[in-house]
Amino acid sequence: MQAMLLDALQRIVGGANVLTGDNCVPYETDWRGRYRGKALCVVRPGSTQEVAAVVQACAAARVCIVTQGGNTGLAGGATPSDAGTQVVLSLTRMQSIREIDTENDTLTVEAGCVLQTVQDAAAGRERLFPLSLAAEGSCTIGGNLATNAGGTQVLRYGNARELCLGLEVVTASGEVWSSLRGLRKDNTGYDLRDLFIGSEGTLGIITAATLKLFPVPAAQVTAFTALPSIQAAVQLLQMARSHLGAGLTGFEVMNAHSLQLVATHFPNQPLPLPLDAPYFVLLELSDTISEPHASGMFERLLEHALHDGVMSNAAVAQSLQQSFEFWSLRESIPLAQAEEGLNIKHDISLPISRIAEFVATVGGQLETEFPGARLVNFGHLGDGNLHFNLQAPAGVDAVEFLHTHQASCNRLVHDAVHARGGSISAEHGIGQLKAAELQRYKPELELQLMRAIKQALDPHSLLNPGKVLI
Amino acid sequence: MQAMLLDALQRIVGGANVLTGDNCVPYETDWRGRYRGKALCVVRPGSTQEVAAVVQACAAARVCIVTQGGNTGLAGGATPSDAGTQVVLSLTRMQSIREIDTENDTLTVEAGCVLQTVQDAAAGRERLFPLSLAAEGSCTIGGNLATNAGGTQVLRYGNARELCLGLEVVTASGEVWSSLRGLRKDNTGYDLRDLFIGSEGTLGIITAATLKLFPVPAAQVTAFTALPSIQAAVQLLQMARSHLGAGLTGFEVMNAHSLQLVATHFPNQPLPLPLDAPYFVLLELSDTISEPHASGMFERLLEHALHDGVMSNAAVAQSLQQSFEFWSLRESIPLAQAEEGLNIKHDISLPISRIAEFVATVGGQLETEFPGARLVNFGHLGDGNLHFNLQAPAGVDAVEFLHTHQASCNRLVHDAVHARGGSISAEHGIGQLKAAELQRYKPELELQLMRAIKQALDPHSLLNPGKVLI
Repeated sequence: MQAMLLDALQRIVGGANVLTGDNCVPYETDWRGRYRGKALCVVRPGSTQEVAAVVQACAAARVCIVTQGGNTGLAGGATPSDAGTQVVLSLTRMQSIREIDTENDTLTVEAGCVLQTVQDAAAGRERLFPLSLAAEGSCTIGGNLATNAGGTQVLRYGNARELCLGLEVVTASGEVWSSLRGLRKDNTGYDLRDLFIGSEGTLGIITAATLKLFPVPAAQVTAFTALPSIQAAVQLLQMARSHLGAGLTGFEVMNAHSLQLVATHFPNQPLPLPLDAPYFVLLELSDTISEPHASGMFERLLEHALHDGVMSNAAVAQSLQQSFEFWSLRESIPLAQAEEGLNIKHDISLPISRIAEFVATVGGQLETEFPGARLVNFGHLGDGNLHFNLQAPAGVDAVEFLHTHQASCNRLVHDAVHARGGSISAEHGIGQLKAAELQRYKPELELQLMRAIKQALDPHSLLNPGKVLI
Repeated sequence: MQAMLLDALQRIVGGANVLTGDNCVPYETDWRGRYRGKALCVVRPGSTQEVAAVVQACAAARVCIVTQGGNTGLAGGATPSDAGTQVVLSLTRMQSIREIDTENDTLTVEAGCVLQTVQDAAAGRERLFPLSLAAEGSCTIGGNLATNAGGTQVLRYGNARELCLGLEVVTASGEVWSSLRGLRKDNTGYDLRDLFIGSEGTLGIITAATLKLFPVPAAQVTAFTALPSIQAAVQLLQMARSHLGAGLTGFEVMNAHSLQLVATHFPNQPLPLPLDAPYFVLLELSDTISEPHASGMFERLLEHALHDGVMSNAAVAQSLQQSFEFWSLRESIPLAQAEEGLNIKHDISLPISRIAEFVATVGGQLETEFPGARLVNFGHLGDGNLHFNLQAPAGVDAVEFLHTHQASCNRLVHDAVHARGGSISAEHGIGQLKAAELQRYKPELELQLMRAIKQALDPHSLLNPGKVLI
């Protein structure tokens, strides 16, 4: 039976594009190395028609399919089970940009195209595709959509979902549904697009998408600010929204410890301000007029903030190079964390009005429960999204700390998030990592509705079983 | 059986809130008077719990439910069938604003609240709720979400869907699902919110929503411009997006004939420009700084446009009063049309890059097919959305013209829209009006997926049968 399926798959995609044995290894482990699976084979189709034929062949054999893009996910959503019975469908050969329509400000691209390639293609036509995240050099747009990726520009441009106007999807029965029409308004029936987006390959296989493009800002200016508290950061966000409107394209918060880690592990990175405040915020302003215009707007905002005591110090980047350095500090935090050792990670969101109280209360509880452990608190405050991570106390073995305390720390943080109406997965999705947590925190009615939809669109549970819903 | 159900409903909502006989009449006809139904009764619950109990009672009796808000829909989606067997569930008693969270920039409101009340409540806390459309004084937010309403600010702020962060929904089985959490990022499972939004009461009953608020712009400036062609309008849109970025909050196109109708039927309305160009565009710029700043930005744009021949004339509003007059011209077009007589209406969208060719080609075909008939072409060009309406030739009886030619005119326009990847219902939804058209234009696979979802969430087809899917 398996041999027959392998034969069929080879006929569809060509022998060179069906990998078996050790050739599958790179596709069987997730990026962070937390999950290790075993695939029946890896299939690399080169077109939507090939994807459809692969799905039909798998469906006929009742073999499950795990779709994979750049394999950079953080929740194990693209790793097969260890049973050796699932087919990994890698979309990385499908990477062509099918169309750029500058008059409609849209770009249609295949799912396996790397995010940075999409950004570059847009830039080549003097347009902006604003989705931006750490893995942009290797993640694919299909994966971004399957997980509804977030990143640093959500505040202004929205998540991956908001950046997508249409999809091409291969259904669980191997048929091709397309809404690649580039329409900004279309009220003709149920919103299938948004249902497939964020479903992590469990309802259908995204093979292409039509994305929104934006004008390239005339200028981007960044500021690095020191603040007396996280509550002040929330106040600064309010002021920035009011002063800058949609010009505010980035608002990233970092506690002093997270920057201290960067200073320790990457000492060559210049620090724009002394690390003598508890919190720091990186603001980015995108302006349609000019750099002096943007700087003037920033100066007015920062004067107000300083006057009101919301901010204690600020540096405005004087050059593109300095802007790059500010962003680099922020983006180095996860790497500096890793250098310091494994840590207990969270990807939470809260109503912004609850953040200050949450950080004070739960930060205190973590200090009590895990004495000496260090909070690495940073994230996209403008979206209410924090990576509220806990690092072992100095001198304590990080691996042992993780293994001993991860479950109880996750429980404490996630219970507190849940109690405040927050989300236990703001931007990384559920995958395998949080499938059990989902069962704990989602109301049973919502799980029932999700299961009913799964049953309706994938009645034989062939698509990415064991992910999201278990 | 029916008597038992009426008894049960009276016990749930009180006798005064179950209407029968002639008291039902206002709820049995749609706003445009195109559909006339007959309800078993009208039920007016006062709380989500009452809605749930009503649905449970109806489900037990296998009686269908037609949910109604402000009854301003344009597609007959809230009108019951004429069989006298369906319960109309009116949500207009549920109109409280449950919470305004200015720090989170969210507002939570019950479905029956009138849109304008939501706008006013936001304004009262120095926030903007940007959804804006002609019926805002009587339509309800629940109806806006059930139909994914559009309007004049979509270009900048999106449709109703993009303005909603969470919902409270009573399911077909009478259970209450809530996601009223005010989160901007939440990747924990399938996007039920966007599935209920735009489903026109066929998948669940929206009882409350958490909406996004925005900063109030410091200034809003409008310009009224004359253009040599619709292609020039598309070019002006590109220039305006590039110059004004997210400051561009309105971009409405009108052909000369549509403004001529306003001049004829509402002669007291001042015209800012002579009607000697084929097309006109109203632009709105919202600015975070000041009115002089906004005017300066506008002037630079208009100078460029004039220099490039994209525009032949322009007037920039010199006061709020004049801005109001500009908008009033645009908003008077549907009323002026109605004064002139019934006309054959469309609510189409296209990729913006296809609009000029579409208008030229299809406009020509209409001239040939319906000699002397007059095209009333206006709409939200910034979203690719046109109300591409056809009015009887001068002196011809409008009612007779409509009855004779509506079907063939709809066919010509919708076929042409479909051939160009457009939508036959950009912002008004499907309801009854376009349910047959949907069967014609939607791919069978998409209809199957929609039916599977309907079956999954409403297995006994109790919610708004005969609408959207037939």
